[in-house]
Amino acid sequence: MTRRTAGPAGGHRVLVPELRDVMILGPREVRHLHVLRVRPGDTVRVFDGDGHEAEATVATLDDARAELHLGTALAGASETPMPLTLVVALLKGDKLAEVVRAATELGVADIRLIVTARADVREIGAQKLQRLERIAQEAAKQSRRTVIPDVHAPVTVGDLTWPGQLFVAQPGSTTRIGDVLDWAAPVTVLTGPEGGLTDAEVTALAARGAIPVTLGPRILRAETAPVALLGAIAALGR
Amino acid sequence: MTRRTAGPAGGHRVLVPELRDVMILGPREVRHLHVLRVRPGDTVRVFDGDGHEAEATVATLDDARAELHLGTALAGASETPMPLTLVVALLKGDKLAEVVRAATELGVADIRLIVTARADVREIGAQKLQRLERIAQEAAKQSRRTVIPDVHAPVTVGDLTWPGQLFVAQPGSTTRIGDVLDWAAPVTVLTGPEGGLTDAEVTALAARGAIPVTLGPRILRAETAPVALLGAIAALGR
Repeated sequence: MTRRTAGPAGGHRVLVPELRDVMILGPREVRHLHVLRVRPGDTVRVFDGDGHEAEATVATLDDARAELHLGTALAGASETPMPLTLVVALLKGDKLAEVVRAATELGVADIRLIVTARADVREIGAQKLQRLERIAQEAAKQSRRTVIPDVHAPVTVGDLTWPGQLFVAQPGSTTRIGDVLDWAAPVTVLTGPEGGLTDAEVTALAARGAIPVTLGPRILRAETAPVALLGAIAALGR
Repeated sequence: MTRRTAGPAGGHRVLVPELRDVMILGPREVRHLHVLRVRPGDTVRVFDGDGHEAEATVATLDDARAELHLGTALAGASETPMPLTLVVALLKGDKLAEVVRAATELGVADIRLIVTARADVREIGAQKLQRLERIAQEAAKQSRRTVIPDVHAPVTVGDLTWPGQLFVAQPGSTTRIGDVLDWAAPVTVLTGPEGGLTDAEVTALAARGAIPVTLGPRILRAETAPVALLGAIAALGR
């Protein structure tokens, strides 16, 4: 339980709807506090999933209810300078879950699913989408993010809109993302399905301002490409 | 079956012990050829797992035996300019399998396992190690590598040796791997266990020439860090 005694940078993290001077927690979060052996008087971190995080003191704690008092606000040191968005093609089986988890760790603020010409999968059920949202929430907590990424229902690649710059992983490109990415505007990255985007899809995206970038000369699985590309961005230090 | 009619850059890939003018395949590889609907007269690609690859013509093919005739040699365009090595701490469950698979796609030529101070897992059985080798072999084939990475039995981080430059993923570092990596010498990257390397371990590695590098300000799982760091290298275009 080394975390329990950690200083301001450590401490258990509790998701709250809003950061307020006095916050009342219900049975579910209270159970979580008990599992973590939090006791009255302990300091925890509260975050609202929207980029705000602060220390809070556990004023009272019983079986079904806890009262937390807001302490020092904490800067969102774990967030990118501008929002980072991942656009990813629908993938078979449980592959999207792994992508969502890793993308959340790597700083993504928004995840948009797309359907492309070569997609094996063309839709996703409401339950599966909710599961991806829960995974993003868990991963945000574990990696001490102050933002929980939204996971959006899929659109076709033609209907896709994106904030800021769009970088598309594209075999054959020689442009390095590290040479062209600019944190003065939001950053969006896009990776395709198994089998890749079609040339027509890449051309259409490029006509709308997308920049194809390299991930090396090898063939990557559709679930490896987003992690690799987001890793390249994280390795720039943000 | 679009692959079947692919040109010199495509075609089915067959692992052979050595590239020779005439190559005889046994029942196992022949079964593979039948599954792929390869027929006498077809062109396939043969590779030896050691960086050599060439086209070959299927001269004869029956139920248990095939004879292949060597064609044009193919350059190892999918390989990094100098060997890329991944050093990774032992991880729980099936996490190493996923790391080996992604690392192979991302161009690693050698995988060395280490035991560190905070390791949950301190050893790996012979069977599990063999399974990792098989996974590397499959992944190499799928991503059309001409090198199959070796997976080495674990050593302690103190006993570790490495070729060329060693880059260690280290929270708090501000050095970007893209700014310091030099393909004039072999490149080795190292990532720690869940909970990270100890300060003493990082200091000891740095004293031996290792360079700590950033993967951003967030906390990554031990199985995400190697893929992210290798992704950063792939995004440099090699």
